[in-house]
Amino acid sequence: MSSSFFQCTHQYSRGEARCGRITTAHGVIETPVFMPVGTRASVKTLTQDMLEELNATIILGNTYHLYLRPGHELIGRMGGLHQFMSWKRPILTDSGGFQVFSLSKLNKLNEEGVRFQSHIDGSYHLISPEISMEIQKSLGSDIVMAFDECPALPASKEELDKSMRLTLRWAKRCREYQLQPHQHLFGSVQGGLHRDLRTECMESLVEMGFSGMALGGLSVGEKNEEMVEFLDGFVPTMPNQLPRYLMGVGTPLDILNGVKSGLDMFDCVLPTRNARNGQFLTRHGPLNIKNAAFSEDQGPPDSGCQCPTCTRYSRSYIRHLFTVGEYLAAQLITIHNIYFYLNMMAQVRDSIFSDQFDEFYQNFYKDYTSNRWR
Amino acid sequence: MSSSFFQCTHQYSRGEARCGRITTAHGVIETPVFMPVGTRASVKTLTQDMLEELNATIILGNTYHLYLRPGHELIGRMGGLHQFMSWKRPILTDSGGFQVFSLSKLNKLNEEGVRFQSHIDGSYHLISPEISMEIQKSLGSDIVMAFDECPALPASKEELDKSMRLTLRWAKRCREYQLQPHQHLFGSVQGGLHRDLRTECMESLVEMGFSGMALGGLSVGEKNEEMVEFLDGFVPTMPNQLPRYLMGVGTPLDILNGVKSGLDMFDCVLPTRNARNGQFLTRHGPLNIKNAAFSEDQGPPDSGCQCPTCTRYSRSYIRHLFTVGEYLAAQLITIHNIYFYLNMMAQVRDSIFSDQFDEFYQNFYKDYTSNRWR
Repeated sequence: MSSSFFQCTHQYSRGEARCGRITTAHGVIETPVFMPVGTRASVKTLTQDMLEELNATIILGNTYHLYLRPGHELIGRMGGLHQFMSWKRPILTDSGGFQVFSLSKLNKLNEEGVRFQSHIDGSYHLISPEISMEIQKSLGSDIVMAFDECPALPASKEELDKSMRLTLRWAKRCREYQLQPHQHLFGSVQGGLHRDLRTECMESLVEMGFSGMALGGLSVGEKNEEMVEFLDGFVPTMPNQLPRYLMGVGTPLDILNGVKSGLDMFDCVLPTRNARNGQFLTRHGPLNIKNAAFSEDQGPPDSGCQCPTCTRYSRSYIRHLFTVGEYLAAQLITIHNIYFYLNMMAQVRDSIFSDQFDEFYQNFYKDYTSNRWR
Repeated sequence: MSSSFFQCTHQYSRGEARCGRITTAHGVIETPVFMPVGTRASVKTLTQDMLEELNATIILGNTYHLYLRPGHELIGRMGGLHQFMSWKRPILTDSGGFQVFSLSKLNKLNEEGVRFQSHIDGSYHLISPEISMEIQKSLGSDIVMAFDECPALPASKEELDKSMRLTLRWAKRCREYQLQPHQHLFGSVQGGLHRDLRTECMESLVEMGFSGMALGGLSVGEKNEEMVEFLDGFVPTMPNQLPRYLMGVGTPLDILNGVKSGLDMFDCVLPTRNARNGQFLTRHGPLNIKNAAFSEDQGPPDSGCQCPTCTRYSRSYIRHLFTVGEYLAAQLITIHNIYFYLNMMAQVRDSIFSDQFDEFYQNFYKDYTSNRWR
């Protein structure tokens, strides 16, 4: 199954970066890929037409949110998440694990799973490995994530060890669950920044046989340098023939560093969430449209950018929209930010194919940290 | 000036309805026309690309709001409202009169104009006929409205008479103001439901020489039948060679009745505002997407509708988006509602051209009042 699911199409000659192709029932995904986050069956402010226009090849849905509202059974009766939201391209769903621990009230963990209270209405729920699989089966996503424990940080090595072993027992239960034929299950590697724990977890997951390997529990409080150093050491030890997914990360530089260490898949709410706070992400760093200096700036938000926002609207106009609280502000900035992330990934893939990734990395890094807008 | 500005292209043979063409520096407008409202330089939730795709030929901007934020002088320095918001087609701006009376705190009227406190920050301002013209000149709209008084209702005939005479003195001052060469000034006919006051006001405005005639102070508290009866009697007495604009009205049936009485131009926040409350406007009456009956309805919001929303998304999906508070809900419903209004106007024009307006009117009226969704 895995060999036809993922193919490495080009290995960078001077490092770990690589291009690949994931083939799903809903289409092909060229990697390294960024997946826009559509938490509640919508990438906030964007129509599905716009997502297609921006060349999103896969989006992410959140199991926790969709389970609570409108409910996975309803979505199942509507023909699954693709049909429900009218998105014909691939979808990845997370396991709900991270949100159960970070969003819900009063969660209580035992071997069976996690009991928690909804952050919306306080109602009581249980998500177990089997229930997470059942939800994701109803959603019909192309890539399904195994249910994992996401321990609160900081945590001792002993706690992380215990948590990793629970994640492994849960992974086994997920692996035994019968998903839909078109669905591919990814395992989740836990263990904090402890290389030995991560390695043990990964090796056990490999034995169980997953279609892809995800790294969870990163960018959750540790220093950025610690994450980068960990990834540089660990990712090259992961199986070559499986896609490698860094969950919930990150900034443009985080992603670039991830690619450099050999990762293939990324998702993050940053481009959509920061848009709603007035932040344009650009090659030259983040630009805050609220800045008074832009009030009469007739230039495009990000000069040279070919997105639908930058080719039509000025900083002055978007700053006005943001200042008065018009809906359109968040929409126009989100369009740019998603375009920026997806375009960056296309450039990353080109640079790997042409064996110029290091040059691309250095130039991008220099430009991005130039602080031009500050 | 007026003869090349407005041409009646077809007079319905069995009634007062008519088709016309308004030619401005920014393009041609076929009438009867509905003008989407872009209060703060944005038709809420829609990109300008989408407005073009929906075939909006003219939009409206609000002088009061744009004067307060971002300020007409800033917009003037940015090259005018067209350039500022990147909208190349015609724009009409209102005079600010209605908002000064309805939105501001503590407004105080005298011969010079109206002093008021901003509804945003309580700051003090004066709008006079000259200042309204100055603002609209900076905005550079194609159609400019004369500054009028909009008396609070109910009002005695004596009060309405006094107010109408002030509106006339203000209209004269507006008429004497030098606008930009491409701008056309419309007069505003006031006088409540009193035919004699309205006639006197209109005749004086005709003498002053305006490019179009607007009816203000309607749909502001009187019974709908009173408005319809008044329009049926009054509109046919208005000069044939000028476009006739019913300000701020209204529902689909209000507009249809307006066309029947001989009116050419309409604007209303209803399709955009009601979208944000979950209301789809359809041929068979308003449909409230919050209705639980739609929770598993896989059909399009308005069956048979060819808009970008109805051709892609289901009632079930949009109800979910609305229920959880996703931004996309308002956007998708607004797309449909603006399409519905503009498509209705295209059908109205076709029916006048083919001399079948009465048949169209009767069928539409029957369908719209069928209460299919209630």
